[in-house]
Amino acid sequence: MYMYFPFRVCWIKDIVVAVTGENIEAMKSIIQKYQHKGISLVEAGVTRHRSIFNGLKVLAGDQPGSRLSRPEVVIIHDAVRPFFEEDDLLKVVKAAKEHGAAGAVRPLVSTVISPSTEGCLDHSLERARYRASEMPQAFLFDVIYEAYQQCSDYDLDFGTECLQLALKYCGTNAKLVEGSPDLWKVTYKRDLYAAESIIKERISQEICIVVDKEEKEHIGHLLEAVLRNELNHVKVTSGVPCHAGGSIQHIIEQCYSFVCVNVMTADFQNTQKLLDMLEECNLSILYPVVVFSVHFLDFEVGPLSQKMESLMWIREFAIEAKKRNILLCGLLINYSQDERKLQESLRQGAIIIATLMKERNFALVGQLLVA
Amino acid sequence: MYMYFPFRVCWIKDIVVAVTGENIEAMKSIIQKYQHKGISLVEAGVTRHRSIFNGLKVLAGDQPGSRLSRPEVVIIHDAVRPFFEEDDLLKVVKAAKEHGAAGAVRPLVSTVISPSTEGCLDHSLERARYRASEMPQAFLFDVIYEAYQQCSDYDLDFGTECLQLALKYCGTNAKLVEGSPDLWKVTYKRDLYAAESIIKERISQEICIVVDKEEKEHIGHLLEAVLRNELNHVKVTSGVPCHAGGSIQHIIEQCYSFVCVNVMTADFQNTQKLLDMLEECNLSILYPVVVFSVHFLDFEVGPLSQKMESLMWIREFAIEAKKRNILLCGLLINYSQDERKLQESLRQGAIIIATLMKERNFALVGQLLVA
Repeated sequence: MYMYFPFRVCWIKDIVVAVTGENIEAMKSIIQKYQHKGISLVEAGVTRHRSIFNGLKVLAGDQPGSRLSRPEVVIIHDAVRPFFEEDDLLKVVKAAKEHGAAGAVRPLVSTVISPSTEGCLDHSLERARYRASEMPQAFLFDVIYEAYQQCSDYDLDFGTECLQLALKYCGTNAKLVEGSPDLWKVTYKRDLYAAESIIKERISQEICIVVDKEEKEHIGHLLEAVLRNELNHVKVTSGVPCHAGGSIQHIIEQCYSFVCVNVMTADFQNTQKLLDMLEECNLSILYPVVVFSVHFLDFEVGPLSQKMESLMWIREFAIEAKKRNILLCGLLINYSQDERKLQESLRQGAIIIATLMKERNFALVGQLLVA
Repeated sequence: MYMYFPFRVCWIKDIVVAVTGENIEAMKSIIQKYQHKGISLVEAGVTRHRSIFNGLKVLAGDQPGSRLSRPEVVIIHDAVRPFFEEDDLLKVVKAAKEHGAAGAVRPLVSTVISPSTEGCLDHSLERARYRASEMPQAFLFDVIYEAYQQCSDYDLDFGTECLQLALKYCGTNAKLVEGSPDLWKVTYKRDLYAAESIIKERISQEICIVVDKEEKEHIGHLLEAVLRNELNHVKVTSGVPCHAGGSIQHIIEQCYSFVCVNVMTADFQNTQKLLDMLEECNLSILYPVVVFSVHFLDFEVGPLSQKMESLMWIREFAIEAKKRNILLCGLLINYSQDERKLQESLRQGAIIIATLMKERNFALVGQLLVA
């Protein structure tokens, strides 16, 4: 499956995705579910080059009934390289406007060798003199379309390099642009592990602490300080929940992790308010949102288990939230008069928050954790 | 840092590790901590080839005071490729005995291109005709030692390929052996993510359920069935704890995940017995061991919080276990008379066990989870 343009970059006009027949319906339902705009689907070919050619034909606008108009520049990208940034696209597009073609390259990680027909070493290449060709690549549309129209069946069936076609059939020497390490191809099982960790890291870059004005703001600040200390590189913000354009509305629309502070109360009023707001903005459609319902209680006053009793129905509460892709967990922090104990409990709480925020695993939904 | 031999392969005689001066002390303490045998350290050179040459000189046995004798075959390996299997070594050693030299190769993931001096595409290589050269590689000692003695300073400073040296200076065409995908080089941050996931997966291949003879074995079997169902690809074994050569002794020496079943009791007798056994065998020195203290209690008889009260001291208990790299967690399962509720609670419990077993994160040490 080749994806011709990324989402959420305002200067991209049209996106053409080449999909095999058996995956067309799945792709249509993805587009509908995530409300993607400006996407056309085209049937994939049996090889990489044939899929790209099919996509270019649609963009050429010379097909009957096509709503697309021929662009000045086209970007070609692989769906198996999902982690590019807008800047990666800008660099190849600028270079393509100047040189006619451009592609991202990376240094070689391993030495490349040429085997003999007997499976022995024939010669090895000097690693520093070669580059791995990655994606995205960009072309003046007329250059790459001309190249695909001219190229042979052998090229279409056995070739792998679009830049080579532009060189061979249009005499265009593509500019090579140093790409970021994130452009690698998700190929092996280990790459799926890496991809999962990268996504989890990216959506865990910000945590929002929700406090109630009427409650002791002091505690919110204490927790904020400890979280800042434990969660290096994580942006810690805080705000008051309130429906009509309140202070955390803009945070809610871009943040995937929340800590909802309840001081000396064993109810979920604050947490419920936050969950309602999250439901309205519908952010959890893309990735799971983590919400910690944090309860500050003095562990030394009465048995801990009694305090937990009224909080046990977080279990029912969490089942509902889970349906909306929200991972709700309870966390008890010891609001001790002893400053040392309070700090230790805060630190423990921050470690638990950091872990669940990173791992986002629904197995722990509705658990009542104790810091 | 180049590692010449892997551990735990019985036919490997000596291991020489090239380490930079600043890391010598750290390496010595690793060897001591994990009680590795048969390892010699040599100072690394400023380049890959110089490090390897230093290692070979030690193995040649012609240095004053060397306790090593010149081997017939030497394997060269990179420490950044930690996931090889004994079979990968066997294959290159056998091929080296026949051909004089051999190395693991993999298909190229990206097309390799040659840039012009202006940073534009000069030409691209046909991907199917080349291979990525990986490690391990094996050589008849006399071949590779001769090659390093003959080669130029330019080779030592700018070369990257040992097979090329054997070809250039000894006329030995190395046999190329198809390697497993696990031989990749841990290079970027994403590779660390992948490596962590692979290690966690490997040590989570087996889970042992510990039941007490005197207790209802029925429950042990129920849990076993549900775990087998939830944990695909995981070997589920069970046994009775007992000190003198008991049935789980041999499992304990190779398993990193335990579920200790306590039926209708709120004490940790079984769990304590297991922890003592784990301490004796010292397995947790290598990787963290996960122990679930599972308590079957009927949630409908009396308040749940009261049942939790006596179990809350798992927190203290877990702090002790953590010092020995054991992650202890409590898990309450609803031993309901209602078969449907019991099954649902068992299934929930299995999901929690599977998750913590995979993630092995110490942030949840001492928590009392409810299924």
